[in-house]
Amino acid sequence: MRKIEVVQNILGANESIAVQNKQILDESGVFALNIMSSPGAGKTSLILQTIAGLKDRLRIGVIEGDVASTLDAEKVKNEAVAVVLITTRNMPESCSLTASMIATALKKLPLADMDLLLIENVGNLICPSEFVLGEHRRVVISSLPEGDDKPIKYPMIFADADAVVINKIDFLPYVEFDIAAFQEHVEGLNPRVKFFEVSCKTGAGMENWCAWVQKEVEASAYKSASLNISLGGRGIR
Amino acid sequence: MRKIEVVQNILGANESIAVQNKQILDESGVFALNIMSSPGAGKTSLILQTIAGLKDRLRIGVIEGDVASTLDAEKVKNEAVAVVLITTRNMPESCSLTASMIATALKKLPLADMDLLLIENVGNLICPSEFVLGEHRRVVISSLPEGDDKPIKYPMIFADADAVVINKIDFLPYVEFDIAAFQEHVEGLNPRVKFFEVSCKTGAGMENWCAWVQKEVEASAYKSASLNISLGGRGIR
Repeated sequence: MRKIEVVQNILGANESIAVQNKQILDESGVFALNIMSSPGAGKTSLILQTIAGLKDRLRIGVIEGDVASTLDAEKVKNEAVAVVLITTRNMPESCSLTASMIATALKKLPLADMDLLLIENVGNLICPSEFVLGEHRRVVISSLPEGDDKPIKYPMIFADADAVVINKIDFLPYVEFDIAAFQEHVEGLNPRVKFFEVSCKTGAGMENWCAWVQKEVEASAYKSASLNISLGGRGIR
Repeated sequence: MRKIEVVQNILGANESIAVQNKQILDESGVFALNIMSSPGAGKTSLILQTIAGLKDRLRIGVIEGDVASTLDAEKVKNEAVAVVLITTRNMPESCSLTASMIATALKKLPLADMDLLLIENVGNLICPSEFVLGEHRRVVISSLPEGDDKPIKYPMIFADADAVVINKIDFLPYVEFDIAAFQEHVEGLNPRVKFFEVSCKTGAGMENWCAWVQKEVEASAYKSASLNISLGGRGIR
């Protein structure tokens, strides 16, 4: 039981810091997505495509979570307003970003000059489901070559997702992947989830995805502006 | 520092149990492989192909580790001598099999009637690298659609592997994956590793892989028999 208690304490502390992160983001008018997937499912590619599709309309910053290496941060650094790299290798939780890692990264980001924060989590379908970061929306990418059984085998991460991006749809002729069955399994865990079928390689489906992200950012900004007006205008950008 | 201490205690306790697991396996003359990969890289398919290739020569049991679902255990149950399923979802470490989970599973397996134990770890490139189980060899599967940068981004699991199986080589025409560069990165972390290029779907490369497994089992049985003879014949099968 001792170990379970320790785990619960860690998760409880994480949640308190996540609430603070969300307050900081809200006060700065920055909308945050937590992007999660297996290794190699396309988190960095989705981030690059999202920036390409929205950089004329939104000021986008990125937090890159990686166990080791600066590879993904290098790919993104010339595209985003700002990029902060978090390397988890020697941290007590190396298998997921945590709220306290995000709290440190937020201090290094020019939040006043950003509208959208894309957080690339560590490649993992298990641990990231346990650690909220203070994000506004949780996005899971599932790629066709992984197989359509992932929601059955890793249910927790799909149960809490706001959006599921089905990536690498250009592989459809070469793999057995039943998109309808996949969606049905996810909806069984999580009926309100949004689906996007995309190929980050060919750009297919990116218009729908980017339109959703933009709409979410705008809805949040509108809500936050109304709230700020009712509070006497504090913090309106 | 408190959290780091707790993590170290957990890993220390895990290692002691792993040593006991290995003793139990050695006394029963069972050789164990710990098979690790990202979700969907082909652990279950490799296990099914290995059983198909070796079941006339070796008596094979399986431990199936999964966060949730009986899916993989169902696929394997009619092929192996025996299958034990471990579902990690509600355990303190849900992101990897641990030595204590294996200790419990070993009690349920007919070890006296087995030569080889295939352990399918949870789909994850991070946590399983931290938990030894008592296995004789550590196998990592990397599949082509994941990309050739995985050894750079998840170095720990590759650094400790005895064999790296490059799966889904039938995808070579459709993905950018530089096999030579991939191998070079792995060898930079781990010069003594063995590579196998396979397609669990087409069966390509399975002969080489099965030959290696068989050779390892036989070498271990020979070593253990010699040791037993020098100890007065105790435990020779």
